[in-house]
Amino acid sequence: MSHEKYRETLPASWFYDPLQFRRELKAIWGRAWLCIGREEDWPAAGDFHRLPIGAEQIIVTRSEDDVLHAFHNTCRHRGSILCEADSGTFANRRIVCPYHAWSYSLSGELKQAPRATESDGIRLEDFPLYRVALETWRGFVFINLDPEPAISLDQTLEPEAGYVARWPLEQLRSVRRESHRLRCNWKIFWENYLECYHCPGVHPDLCRLVPVYRTGYMDYQDAGLEQDPQRPHAMLRPGAVTWSQDGFTDLPWFKGLGEKELEAGMTFATFRPTMFLVAHVDYVRTVRVMAVGPEETELTVDWYLHRDTGPLPAAEIDRLAAFAGQVVSEDAHACELNQQGIRCSRHEQGVLLEPEDCVFEFEQWVRERLGE
Amino acid sequence: MSHEKYRETLPASWFYDPLQFRRELKAIWGRAWLCIGREEDWPAAGDFHRLPIGAEQIIVTRSEDDVLHAFHNTCRHRGSILCEADSGTFANRRIVCPYHAWSYSLSGELKQAPRATESDGIRLEDFPLYRVALETWRGFVFINLDPEPAISLDQTLEPEAGYVARWPLEQLRSVRRESHRLRCNWKIFWENYLECYHCPGVHPDLCRLVPVYRTGYMDYQDAGLEQDPQRPHAMLRPGAVTWSQDGFTDLPWFKGLGEKELEAGMTFATFRPTMFLVAHVDYVRTVRVMAVGPEETELTVDWYLHRDTGPLPAAEIDRLAAFAGQVVSEDAHACELNQQGIRCSRHEQGVLLEPEDCVFEFEQWVRERLGE
Amino acid sequence: MSHEKYRETLPASWFYDPLQFRRELKAIWGRAWLCIGREEDWPAAGDFHRLPIGAEQIIVTRSEDDVLHAFHNTCRHRGSILCEADSGTFANRRIVCPYHAWSYSLSGELKQAPRATESDGIRLEDFPLYRVALETWRGFVFINLDPEPAISLDQTLEPEAGYVARWPLEQLRSVRRESHRLRCNWKIFWENYLECYHCPGVHPDLCRLVPVYRTGYMDYQDAGLEQDPQRPHAMLRPGAVTWSQDGFTDLPWFKGLGEKELEAGMTFATFRPTMFLVAHVDYVRTVRVMAVGPEETELTVDWYLHRDTGPLPAAEIDRLAAFAGQVVSEDAHACELNQQGIRCSRHEQGVLLEPEDCVFEFEQWVRERLGE
Repeated sequence: MSHEKYRETLPASWFYDPLQFRRELKAIWGRAWLCIGREEDWPAAGDFHRLPIGAEQIIVTRSEDDVLHAFHNTCRHRGSILCEADSGTFANRRIVCPYHAWSYSLSGELKQAPRATESDGIRLEDFPLYRVALETWRGFVFINLDPEPAISLDQTLEPEAGYVARWPLEQLRSVRRESHRLRCNWKIFWENYLECYHCPGVHPDLCRLVPVYRTGYMDYQDAGLEQDPQRPHAMLRPGAVTWSQDGFTDLPWFKGLGEKELEAGMTFATFRPTMFLVAHVDYVRTVRVMAVGPEETELTVDWYLHRDTGPLPAAEIDRLAAFAGQVVSEDAHACELNQQGIRCSRHEQGVLLEPEDCVFEFEQWVRERLGE
Repeated sequence: MSHEKYRETLPASWFYDPLQFRRELKAIWGRAWLCIGREEDWPAAGDFHRLPIGAEQIIVTRSEDDVLHAFHNTCRHRGSILCEADSGTFANRRIVCPYHAWSYSLSGELKQAPRATESDGIRLEDFPLYRVALETWRGFVFINLDPEPAISLDQTLEPEAGYVARWPLEQLRSVRRESHRLRCNWKIFWENYLECYHCPGVHPDLCRLVPVYRTGYMDYQDAGLEQDPQRPHAMLRPGAVTWSQDGFTDLPWFKGLGEKELEAGMTFATFRPTMFLVAHVDYVRTVRVMAVGPEETELTVDWYLHRDTGPLPAAEIDRLAAFAGQVVSEDAHACELNQQGIRCSRHEQGVLLEPEDCVFEFEQWVRERLGE
Repeated sequence: MSHEKYRETLPASWFYDPLQFRRELKAIWGRAWLCIGREEDWPAAGDFHRLPIGAEQIIVTRSEDDVLHAFHNTCRHRGSILCEADSGTFANRRIVCPYHAWSYSLSGELKQAPRATESDGIRLEDFPLYRVALETWRGFVFINLDPEPAISLDQTLEPEAGYVARWPLEQLRSVRRESHRLRCNWKIFWENYLECYHCPGVHPDLCRLVPVYRTGYMDYQDAGLEQDPQRPHAMLRPGAVTWSQDGFTDLPWFKGLGEKELEAGMTFATFRPTMFLVAHVDYVRTVRVMAVGPEETELTVDWYLHRDTGPLPAAEIDRLAAFAGQVVSEDAHACELNQQGIRCSRHEQGVLLEPEDCVFEFEQWVRERLGE
């Protein structure tokens, strides 16, 4: 597996073998904190969304005491689904099974099992809905399919959450959501995200905006370059303030950002394996990742503004989303090219160069999660 | 598996696991008597129908001596199918393979293998078509894929055949056939059929016609209710005589029914695992069940009248079929909801209450068939 | 498996079982010389075609020194595909990976790995493209996926190549190409090709053109018939000169054919398992075979004329291709009938008669390849 002269990638088969995928679903995805949206997606008690998470269906709702809850969409009686709709509001603050009318509170307690008698041996308290762990962080909602999560949300968030501490994340509002179905393994997506070695060829416009990317490195230090001492944190080309076609913005700037954040013009925070966040002076973007199949991955991209920003005309939102949208599309295409070639029977392992240090580190993390 | 306080269902995985499905195909479906139609579907010698039964193709034909025969649709030479058409009449009373023209009698003997010589070692009598057991019961045709059926047709029919003894089943004629492809396991269908616990929520119109169904029980005794001593057998609401939108009928009544059958207004006979029959004063209905895949089941519903009934206008047949058709659709939807939720990874087994006694008995029967 | 009185076919399951298919892919298809086209398909240096071969993608290109090369379409870095287009010309005589711009010569050497340094341990000479063996024979291009082919192209070609020695194969030009996707196992296709026992029933027009086929045998000797001593090599009916609707042709005849070839009117050469060639006085036809799945086979049929023949109107090419096209369609249909019936659970093995001697020999060859 290891070569004395150069660093090798994970075995190629790990990127398409269905058994390996099942291992990773269990050991990585079944234990991870998965970002599923924002608290404001459930404005009132009884509001629900139904979410397909891999092979599972999860319902998330808000109870009368204003707490968010996540449950498997399955009745404890004979396993019927509870919600047929993708979203809506539970009537009468009850979750009622459409099959035999077993009825649950919004916090998941079984309140009524029609015609159950003592001789059936059914005690209502023994049959709550199957609960899914749910926590929130600064407005973002995370769930964890592990019945007893071994990883805390903090472990997922730290230390990167600190990088975006000055942004008012609690006060964001999503103004655009896009979904992309990528025909590639989920690790292909992350490996693409974790290196800029592909930037010169794949992202010419991005390289004009973020000049260091032209070197194939993520930052000046890795590239072995001196930064302008006048602007030691700057990532964007002189004059540019945000990720947009021209580098400028007509939107209001977030208040409270420090000199470092303003100068950088872009700040990333990565919450592996399900989400990363990019914060600019005027908007925040998140990309959520979901492993769908050995060679299929779902991306959900959100663009957020401060919730006090007035409604924007559609054309302005298009403009806001255009630049990063293009970068996502370029990466998606590169990921799919990678996936196609990796199935070659002769290709057993690839190699990693210095600009791919973070890919190497990611692959070590995957191996550890799998106990290798 | 078993719980001291309450009764648990079969393991949830039995309703979707492909290996379990294969076990059941072999141990249950490969040994069962499968109803495939009515004798009158083959009016003359040489008439044939081709039937997909699971992964097999079966041809059924009538020989010159008026006997029905079932064969695998496979030539003994190199395995080509014999019939390409779904139905028709064999020319010249011969079944001729379209590939190399091996030719069989309507009762399956190999009559000619062109160019076969003594040196080939082919004795015609050694290569009859692969025969499938076939028996009839009061006009209904059953086959059994077990080369030597371990279960007799009588075992399948008794005692329920007796319940409909007074109906002139031999003289029926199907006037409407509907097929439904359900995205659920075949056992989900039967479990739905075997309890009325779901009736109040799923079948409001049916509960108006059959008042005891409102209780969630199949009959008054199970429901612990006293029946009207004037009408001790009655199942339909006062005034109603059959399963129809208004409970009435313009069709002639079957002759020879006893007071009990007339008063009941509905009589079921169940021939597990492939068919049930509902007999009313004016029409008979059968539902045939076929396991297609772990999560796919085919239903074929027929509505029969006495064959002496003159031809009915299409609108009248629509009216005849509407009510039970609605009930079938409601059940199909409930079955599919159940299937969707049962795949939840946390749901290992459901529970059964008193109104589900017949479901429990069915699950015991399944376990026994599998030798558990 | 073997019967003392008659000859049995391969086990029926070998014609549909996915595991057996994988065995054959590896032991037979992974070692065979596969015909992929004609040298003239790559007229200039840098021209390329991308070919799906089973689950692999192969690129074939011509280098500056006029040599054809075949490579897996996979970069040695992290496994991206190199070519996205199905065909085209490599710019600047370089094969450049679209992901990280690793760059290879047309003969497969890695020429540049951007930003690779000594500390990465990457020596360019250690990372050539994964080469696929390629050889040519009289204008036909063959590849072999076996990294070190155990079978020589000569072994594949001999002795049948000799049968068509007098045709100017180097000077052919394809004027029509048709593809057919057959829903059958690849062996079903070959077994059909290897016997004429099916001809009387399946190919009535062909039997009019080639009278001996009416006997179910391939030639007069096997059929035990005396041939016309005036025309001892003739296969076509008196007056006919080629495979066409009326047996005649308006096209020029190939020069250099001997009396035997002219009299025969048709000469076959079979290069198992991937191709056969039929040579007539006026045109040559090839059928290439590719195993796609356990029950799926791709055929590619080409009609060739001498390259000096002027351009033909489309209607004339249609006429040229019509007769053999009909025969291919008739065989394709027969193959699919065979495949459908062979899945019957009762059909374990078929039997072979004398006209099927070549099928028996083919099945022995398959068994040997698999080490049985």
